[in-house]
Amino acid sequence: MEKVKMTENLYFSRIIQGFWRLAEWKMSDQELLTFIENCMEMGITTFDHADIYGNYTCEYLFGRALKQKSVLRHQIQLVTKCGIKPISDEYPERYVVHYDTSKNHIIQSVEQSLKNFGTDYIDVVLIHRPDPFMNPEEVAEAFTQLKKEGKVLYFGVSNFLPSQFHMLSSYLDFPLVTNQIEVSVIQLEHFEKGTIDLCQEKRIAPMVWSPLAGGKIFTSETEQAIRLRATLKRVAREIGANSIDQVMYAWLLVHPAKLLPIVGSGKLERVQVAVESVKLQMDRQQWFSILESSKGHPVP
Amino acid sequence: MEKVKMTENLYFSRIIQGFWRLAEWKMSDQELLTFIENCMEMGITTFDHADIYGNYTCEYLFGRALKQKSVLRHQIQLVTKCGIKPISDEYPERYVVHYDTSKNHIIQSVEQSLKNFGTDYIDVVLIHRPDPFMNPEEVAEAFTQLKKEGKVLYFGVSNFLPSQFHMLSSYLDFPLVTNQIEVSVIQLEHFEKGTIDLCQEKRIAPMVWSPLAGGKIFTSETEQAIRLRATLKRVAREIGANSIDQVMYAWLLVHPAKLLPIVGSGKLERVQVAVESVKLQMDRQQWFSILESSKGHPVP
Amino acid sequence: MEKVKMTENLYFSRIIQGFWRLAEWKMSDQELLTFIENCMEMGITTFDHADIYGNYTCEYLFGRALKQKSVLRHQIQLVTKCGIKPISDEYPERYVVHYDTSKNHIIQSVEQSLKNFGTDYIDVVLIHRPDPFMNPEEVAEAFTQLKKEGKVLYFGVSNFLPSQFHMLSSYLDFPLVTNQIEVSVIQLEHFEKGTIDLCQEKRIAPMVWSPLAGGKIFTSETEQAIRLRATLKRVAREIGANSIDQVMYAWLLVHPAKLLPIVGSGKLERVQVAVESVKLQMDRQQWFSILESSKGHPVP
Repeated sequence: MEKVKMTENLYFSRIIQGFWRLAEWKMSDQELLTFIENCMEMGITTFDHADIYGNYTCEYLFGRALKQKSVLRHQIQLVTKCGIKPISDEYPERYVVHYDTSKNHIIQSVEQSLKNFGTDYIDVVLIHRPDPFMNPEEVAEAFTQLKKEGKVLYFGVSNFLPSQFHMLSSYLDFPLVTNQIEVSVIQLEHFEKGTIDLCQEKRIAPMVWSPLAGGKIFTSETEQAIRLRATLKRVAREIGANSIDQVMYAWLLVHPAKLLPIVGSGKLERVQVAVESVKLQMDRQQWFSILESSKGHPVP
Repeated sequence: MEKVKMTENLYFSRIIQGFWRLAEWKMSDQELLTFIENCMEMGITTFDHADIYGNYTCEYLFGRALKQKSVLRHQIQLVTKCGIKPISDEYPERYVVHYDTSKNHIIQSVEQSLKNFGTDYIDVVLIHRPDPFMNPEEVAEAFTQLKKEGKVLYFGVSNFLPSQFHMLSSYLDFPLVTNQIEVSVIQLEHFEKGTIDLCQEKRIAPMVWSPLAGGKIFTSETEQAIRLRATLKRVAREIGANSIDQVMYAWLLVHPAKLLPIVGSGKLERVQVAVESVKLQMDRQQWFSILESSKGHPVP
Repeated sequence: MEKVKMTENLYFSRIIQGFWRLAEWKMSDQELLTFIENCMEMGITTFDHADIYGNYTCEYLFGRALKQKSVLRHQIQLVTKCGIKPISDEYPERYVVHYDTSKNHIIQSVEQSLKNFGTDYIDVVLIHRPDPFMNPEEVAEAFTQLKKEGKVLYFGVSNFLPSQFHMLSSYLDFPLVTNQIEVSVIQLEHFEKGTIDLCQEKRIAPMVWSPLAGGKIFTSETEQAIRLRATLKRVAREIGANSIDQVMYAWLLVHPAKLLPIVGSGKLERVQVAVESVKLQMDRQQWFSILESSKGHPVP
């Protein structure tokens, strides 16, 4: 599979495997290790996490599986996130979902991620959400210290709009290497708000979460979903895709911004569907007819 | 008529004549040549086209008229556009309006425009619409090649929001010389979205399409149109304008951003109305009372 | 009270006293002088005005009080604004609220402010509103001349969105030192439009008008107001605030962007309420629970 250069010395696989729902997969350590190795055989080397996934359990489950074959660590890129503090029985003192991008919290969260993964470095750490209460000097101090200590190699953000990206960047001595954003055939917000434009301007490849829109398209009976399913089915036939989710992946993969879809499923056959989408071609009319079906009107 | 410096060695006339509807004017080559010469006598030297106008016929009609007196070529500035692929019987394979800003399409489209116009260079080529599927590297390659070959002297964009303008600019070794946008007393979008601010920041004069809002104000019975007509009539009396469309032109012409209205009519007397608007003065109260009538409330 | 460095050689007090409603306070010169001195004893040294406040009377009233003890002038920072031309019996020729950021008007307005205040310099002059008819070259000429003459030490803006801030800045040889914006627990616009992000990016501290939302929260019976009152009361108890307006001030004061609230009241006890808010602490959960109550939903 194609590797995408994120910055000097950092390459991501074109398809990224996400572990948001890992705790629900109910895999034994051995099953998870096999899953990881199967992903790697398909060319997926980049794995996406967050401190909070699975009520703070997913990093640990992943790390425990990885420990069985620690040679794998240096063949993969580990991405994780920090900055959200959800309501959680692990933290009974919390009574409101909030963000924490203080120096202390970033460092503590990363230290915990290192322990969870059983590794001594994380490839990329992202600020999970733009924090309206952000002290960018503290973020910069945390990032700089973690980088200097070798605990984190690179930093990025997630769900940041352009003004937020510019602001944080201005406090850093090094570039943010990615912005992980939600994009799909029904989530066009970041086309409209300039986020994708900015990624292209800054030459950074966005990681894309929820590339299949959480499955809404498959079952929803809205006019938009009905229109989209018809168009996706037609394009599937035309480009030789096996299913409409392959077309949804391809719609992202053929875009010049080098969008990197994150697969959310723990079923190997679903991962394979994404991986095989990389080979699909799509012409401009197909791409725009999907856009038109999403919007409900042609481009002007 | 005032010339506006667009960049080194490029001057536009303050009023631009547009040929969007040329095919509907049903002029003979001789009539069109006379029309062009009459425009030039009034000081209009800049002529706006697009590959697609008149279902791909307008450039050719213009070129055929121009051929009769080819000395005119070097006294005028030809502007044209590419990047939209509309549904058209000329291209029966198209089933959805879409954009194409690929290197191939830009170059092919410009080559065709050169043939249509019967000229060996175009003064300015614009990307007609911001393409959500744009590969800015390809656009830059196309522009650079066309510039190097002397086929296009300068490049610009049309309908680009600030994030799109910044993005494409970052791939070019030369500045974009204009952004052609829709502005009128009832189309204020680009005041609100920062587009005009960016033009002022970048010291580029925007070309303005639909400066009379497509005539809606003259006949519409919306509250906004009724309010605007009353205010435009009052201001017409006050500033010595002959008609409310002159006031609509003047409202653009007196703005410090050096907005360059494109006249859409093929009737010489309508062109003259625009040209004579250049001499009109308008004070701040008049300008803001038109703005207020458009918005329906005073500025805060 | 903490001083905030605005730029080289310019420090503002953390709390700013505003004189928008001074004309309504019906103070004698002596009462006003005492009020000013009382403010200064509490640490407030920055005083906010505008040419138009009190139908053009507030600067003069302030100046007359100050004249009684002119030694105070050099212990305070005077901020005033220009650029709005409201309907006013002082200017019977006006029939529409409008803006005027012409060179002439800026200079005349500042000259008048100098006379009103009875001073030979103003610390900071702000453009009161982004003017859609702005000629930034004229603004730059006016600013440069006033600076050169020593009549104004620094310049800023008010209510400017990012595109407007960038645009004007590009015409100036010196940085704008502040953007005075409306922010409160119910006015979150500038969090959403990137204005606060830009202030943090540019390292400028925003002055904040209407920090108590004009009192709407105290009496309104909207769902939002009811929710907010409950949360503000809880937080007041938790952080030891005497009233919910102290919590509203603290919500701004603890924000890392160094928001500088402008007190609008002429009652010393209300000013004291603001001043004492500076000592309050607020943790992230408290801050976000107020945000959540304002929005009606938790952060994502």
